[in-house]
Amino acid sequence: MSTKTSTVWIKDLVFDSFVAGHHLTLDAPPAEGKQSLGPSPKALLLSSLAGCTGMDVVSLLEKMRVGPYTFRMDVESDSTDEHPIVYKEIRLSYFFGGADLPPDKIIKAVSLSSEKYCGVSAMLKQAMPIRIKVFINENEVQL
Amino acid sequence: MSTKTSTVWIKDLVFDSFVAGHHLTLDAPPAEGKQSLGPSPKALLLSSLAGCTGMDVVSLLEKMRVGPYTFRMDVESDSTDEHPIVYKEIRLSYFFGGADLPPDKIIKAVSLSSEKYCGVSAMLKQAMPIRIKVFINENEVQL
Repeated sequence: MSTKTSTVWIKDLVFDSFVAGHHLTLDAPPAEGKQSLGPSPKALLLSSLAGCTGMDVVSLLEKMRVGPYTFRMDVESDSTDEHPIVYKEIRLSYFFGGADLPPDKIIKAVSLSSEKYCGVSAMLKQAMPIRIKVFINENEVQL
Repeated sequence: MSTKTSTVWIKDLVFDSFVAGHHLTLDAPPAEGKQSLGPSPKALLLSSLAGCTGMDVVSLLEKMRVGPYTFRMDVESDSTDEHPIVYKEIRLSYFFGGADLPPDKIIKAVSLSSEKYCGVSAMLKQAMPIRIKVFINENEVQL
């Protein structure tokens, strides 16, 4: 399968990226006295990772008939100081909320995404370690 | 430096990602009879790459006092068939338009971004080759 995007320079460091049928504004991170019109390109990698594994996990838990539940992911990264500035490490935390959630099924879904299904994770792992944690109702569960 | 994003599950495969001060809707690619509410996570990698190198190139050309010009980037990728579905190759084309544009300076800016400054490029290159082409007024110039 082939994917194509087109990204047009608007002004300053503002770009319009047409991706998968949607327009997305990209801009540099906010600087003093200057508004940022969109997410910065590098931080977008973290959203990409969360979205990719999140869709896997929701699909897998639906097949396992788990639910209802709330679900969010926090992704943090540390960068190098020297150019090219890259992520040295990514920390990905999954937070599930709800009554009577089965830890074993949730861990299985997260592990399957991380090890088998999530393409973004598989690509980024070539460049830096991705450390995973899972929380159910704010309590960390062991993977 | 540390970067943090938070991505919340909304419904179906729709997620809201809060990244660098902006909200971004992510969704699965459009399927038959179903609208997609936002870009798919994997395709977002291509926008991230274009935005990152695009900001480098615009900044470098400003320092070199090149302009005015129009500028866009097309990014295409081929994916594997098996899980995890990853990009096998990325093709990144830079298109510049304008009168009396200096090819040597444009090539220098693109090369400096690709080889020295662009962190997204440096990270993705660990996972797949990124092939670059440069066009000035629709004519390809040799790197």
